[in-house]
Amino acid sequence: MTGACVCVFRADLRKAVESAELKNQRLKEVFQRKIQEFRTACYVLTGYQIDITTENQYRLTSVYAEHMDDTLLFKASGAVGSGSMNLLETDFSRSLQEMVQLHLFHQRSIPAFLSAVTLELFSRQTTV
Amino acid sequence: MTGACVCVFRADLRKAVESAELKNQRLKEVFQRKIQEFRTACYVLTGYQIDITTENQYRLTSVYAEHMDDTLLFKASGAVGSGSMNLLETDFSRSLQEMVQLHLFHQRSIPAFLSAVTLELFSRQTTV
Repeated sequence: MTGACVCVFRADLRKAVESAELKNQRLKEVFQRKIQEFRTACYVLTGYQIDITTENQYRLTSVYAEHMDDTLLFKASGAVGSGSMNLLETDFSRSLQEMVQLHLFHQRSIPAFLSAVTLELFSRQTTV
Repeated sequence: MTGACVCVFRADLRKAVESAELKNQRLKEVFQRKIQEFRTACYVLTGYQIDITTENQYRLTSVYAEHMDDTLLFKASGAVGSGSMNLLETDFSRSLQEMVQLHLFHQRSIPAFLSAVTLELFSRQTTV
């Protein structure tokens, strides 16, 4: 009788392990789907694909980029949102010196800078 | 001897359940942290806080908004990225009719619209 009880316990525990592992798997799938949905929404709305390249470093690619490697790199000093965020030099950023000077150095606004870049790239697409 | 073996099995299974549950908990924490990091990066860089309000509906609040309820609502028809995305009318969107006409209706570009809104709100902040 005791042996039978132990068997039932074991079967329950085994089920619990399987159930927890299945939950893990589903959680990962939900996570992937949610973050993908958010990244896509961000891209469709703001026009920037944001990729986290290494810790605290973000690569932005505009939906209106003329070349695939026209990307902007930003590095956060410390946790994002609490410290400052700096533009790293790339070939593409060097081609935007006037906007860098005005919006980043003078106005100190990354959103204004990225907005100006979007409008500039969009106008290049439609005026060619 | 058999009884002792069963006990070991049960202890192992119980450990496996606990370990899987702990993994679930950690997965949730990592998920929350990752999505929060991405949302913050999106906000700091593009200037828009993006909230998913209901399925396929996105509320955007600019870092330069003059009032807390100056928000823009977009609704995706179908899965985001595959269908079209439409601006829903809000008090704030009604106040941006010229930009809506030019960038959404004429140019059909949400990124250009949101960029123009950012630059307009930013200029209002700095010129007052």
